[in-house]
Amino acid sequence: MRSTILFLLAVVLGCGSVFGQQPAATPRLYSDATLDQMRSVQRAALASDYALRQTAHLSNNIGPRLTGSAQAEKAVEYVADEMRKLGLEVRLQKLTVPHWVRGVETGELTEFPGMARGTAQKIVLTALGGSVATPETGLTAEIVVANSFAELEAIGRKAVEGKIVLFNNKFDRELAAAGFGGQAYGQAVAYRGGGAIAAARLGAVGVLVRSAGGSQNRLAHTGAMRYDENVPKIPAAAVSSEDADTIAYLAASGPVRARVVLTPRTLPEATSYNVIADLKGSERPDEIVIVSGHLDSWDLGTGALDDATGIALSMQVPYLLKQLKLKPKRTIRFIAYMNEENGLAGGNGYIREEEPNIAKHFAAIESDLGASHPLGILFTGKPEVAAFLQPISTILGSQGAFLTQLQPGGVGSDIGPLTGSGVPSFAPYFDTRTYFNYHHTAADTFDKVDPKQLAENGSLMAVLALGLANLEQPLPR
Amino acid sequence: MRSTILFLLAVVLGCGSVFGQQPAATPRLYSDATLDQMRSVQRAALASDYALRQTAHLSNNIGPRLTGSAQAEKAVEYVADEMRKLGLEVRLQKLTVPHWVRGVETGELTEFPGMARGTAQKIVLTALGGSVATPETGLTAEIVVANSFAELEAIGRKAVEGKIVLFNNKFDRELAAAGFGGQAYGQAVAYRGGGAIAAARLGAVGVLVRSAGGSQNRLAHTGAMRYDENVPKIPAAAVSSEDADTIAYLAASGPVRARVVLTPRTLPEATSYNVIADLKGSERPDEIVIVSGHLDSWDLGTGALDDATGIALSMQVPYLLKQLKLKPKRTIRFIAYMNEENGLAGGNGYIREEEPNIAKHFAAIESDLGASHPLGILFTGKPEVAAFLQPISTILGSQGAFLTQLQPGGVGSDIGPLTGSGVPSFAPYFDTRTYFNYHHTAADTFDKVDPKQLAENGSLMAVLALGLANLEQPLPR
Repeated sequence: MRSTILFLLAVVLGCGSVFGQQPAATPRLYSDATLDQMRSVQRAALASDYALRQTAHLSNNIGPRLTGSAQAEKAVEYVADEMRKLGLEVRLQKLTVPHWVRGVETGELTEFPGMARGTAQKIVLTALGGSVATPETGLTAEIVVANSFAELEAIGRKAVEGKIVLFNNKFDRELAAAGFGGQAYGQAVAYRGGGAIAAARLGAVGVLVRSAGGSQNRLAHTGAMRYDENVPKIPAAAVSSEDADTIAYLAASGPVRARVVLTPRTLPEATSYNVIADLKGSERPDEIVIVSGHLDSWDLGTGALDDATGIALSMQVPYLLKQLKLKPKRTIRFIAYMNEENGLAGGNGYIREEEPNIAKHFAAIESDLGASHPLGILFTGKPEVAAFLQPISTILGSQGAFLTQLQPGGVGSDIGPLTGSGVPSFAPYFDTRTYFNYHHTAADTFDKVDPKQLAENGSLMAVLALGLANLEQPLPR
Repeated sequence: MRSTILFLLAVVLGCGSVFGQQPAATPRLYSDATLDQMRSVQRAALASDYALRQTAHLSNNIGPRLTGSAQAEKAVEYVADEMRKLGLEVRLQKLTVPHWVRGVETGELTEFPGMARGTAQKIVLTALGGSVATPETGLTAEIVVANSFAELEAIGRKAVEGKIVLFNNKFDRELAAAGFGGQAYGQAVAYRGGGAIAAARLGAVGVLVRSAGGSQNRLAHTGAMRYDENVPKIPAAAVSSEDADTIAYLAASGPVRARVVLTPRTLPEATSYNVIADLKGSERPDEIVIVSGHLDSWDLGTGALDDATGIALSMQVPYLLKQLKLKPKRTIRFIAYMNEENGLAGGNGYIREEEPNIAKHFAAIESDLGASHPLGILFTGKPEVAAFLQPISTILGSQGAFLTQLQPGGVGSDIGPLTGSGVPSFAPYFDTRTYFNYHHTAADTFDKVDPKQLAENGSLMAVLALGLANLEQPLPR
């Protein structure tokens, strides 16, 4: 009864525009019921600790989840079970994944100006993901310091041959502190990815890369690196920013030699899975809105910010809808992607299987930049999409997340192939001032997750997912 | 000529008080010449990079300087040479020092709720200074978590026997952020010092202590610990705050077992030295004003803030006076103390030798809390000393360091025995908001030294030392 009255009221008020100065009615984007539901979901998310508990379980109880590890498999089982408990249709999509394992990793400076005889100075380093090993007894060579690819070229083959190159490109902490952590990371990460190839081309026997992150706490920052089949594969490690500074300081006044031991191994490819769980749509079950994150993590920390939070926030979307007994009109598909960090087998495997069905992928959301205070929604797609997000931003504005920002390059690695196929793609628009201080280091642990900020993100994910699932119009694509 | 005119002017103006409402003249504290010299020293210090270069050399070229190490000996030689280069009378005071060396240190959780079969989760730990070793194959036991000594007592012997105790007392980051890092440290450090005794008394086989510092970067914080001859000596390590949080979280829902390997060794006592260098006083050469820091450091970082800066700032006092061709009235004695961190052999050795001469020790200054922006001068002695510092504070006030603060408990460990014997004792009054984020960790490295703030401290040390050396009156004691 009450809803009938509200409906009549809405009709009457809706007529206002006919008589007033307002523009002609545009097609309806969200029904009043959907707008109400989004507000309910927002409230429930801000009050829920579900995502926090899931983040704690993934990072504390399961721990680091490098692709191919027993922990990654445990995480697959765990998340699949949790989704089944919610009553979702769960499917494990089989994948062939790389299996790289870290070994011993130690470094020390064995010669430098002023050094006490018979000593060696420890440096903090970590193998880059995919690196080949040094001999077990270590690689000992002089270090050549270059601040950039161009500088190494200028130093030239003669001075580089037989040496270890240190790429000392500095992460732009000021840019990150201004809120542009992603850009600062993008600039620095070129050396992590391509440093080994560039150094080996000039005859280097190993490469050290200054950590591609903002930490000032003697932490080395791991991450994926590349080889080129036509260039010798040399061992590659990241050193902490402090050690990069020290080496550069010492090398300015005399030769610096290092001994580096790295014993990672690339094992035979393994089998792993994307966890895919559907909350079926009530009106258009064949149309899909994806909520996702990646289940694998680097192995130094416990992958709390990268990306247990993304998984937990995505798990929370169906959890909240079930809790509130809300049925989305389109299907909301939860995906826990595997192998984002060192191969993207999950993202690539998903699109390979779903290729014929791309047109039915209405939208995709991925959360993979931690969980600090969300400023709004990031999207890749037609600029016209922004207008479709406005009612969502109005709701989220009450929690300070009102921006909609077009990001042409894509918003998430795993959903990247979908984005590339034209699927409108979304992510929480994060404040990344501190994210890259912890990302890919041993300090990416559960304590870095702020419960209030996580809840704010949970609200954004759920409101956005429900809004897209119930949108009355197709999204421009 | 010009100085004669200024002198006459001063006499005329000085007469003002006779006719005016001002109080009767108090005894002169500093001559005009001394006040001028203090201002010159201040300007020179703020413009000098001498202390910065010395800090860089000690932390980068020499590196960690744990008592008994080759680096500590190298540092003794280096500092003595530098002081000789300045033309000072240098003496190496022989000391018998402890010689503890760190070994392998690894930790992993081998059982906890939810863990993936066949895995283990690495924890970040570091042996406390002086700890005995575990068996080489490690110590494996269940962990009992206690937040305080009282809580462990309440848990009781039955539940503690045969276990590893984790003291999870949290460093008060809010107190530190408010500027009271020293107080926060003082509260936390009780567990580092006394944790092993308390745990062993109840039958524990090992003790882990939550790091007594503010780091949120997966760093373990080392430092000295104690044993009691009447209680079994059990291995003792600090774990990072993150790992303490994780263990406490896991232990709340089921048993957590850890395997800890620590192979430190206590070697036979060694010989080392305090470096003592005198810049002779021109009027009262037998009266001594000490400027000092400690030359040894913990071994995880490179001892930049703790305490290369203290040494460098103290070295800079005679350097600046020589540079400006200023002769102090009393002797300024530079002391680089050895073994502050794990035994205090330097501080104790010095007073043993100088006992008969204590009355001639006019004042002692030590800098051992890093080198962030100095707020003024800390002192231990008669409260009346504050008035004697006022003209110095007026000069330093131009750089924002105008506070004088009585600290009854002493201002520096090495000069503590002098303080206890009644020698007025001083230290820069530091802002310690960030100091305990790095202190005793691998992140205590040269990049943490802010050149401008170091120069501000250099100015304070030099102005204070010169002022005390030229003071026209005895200090109350």
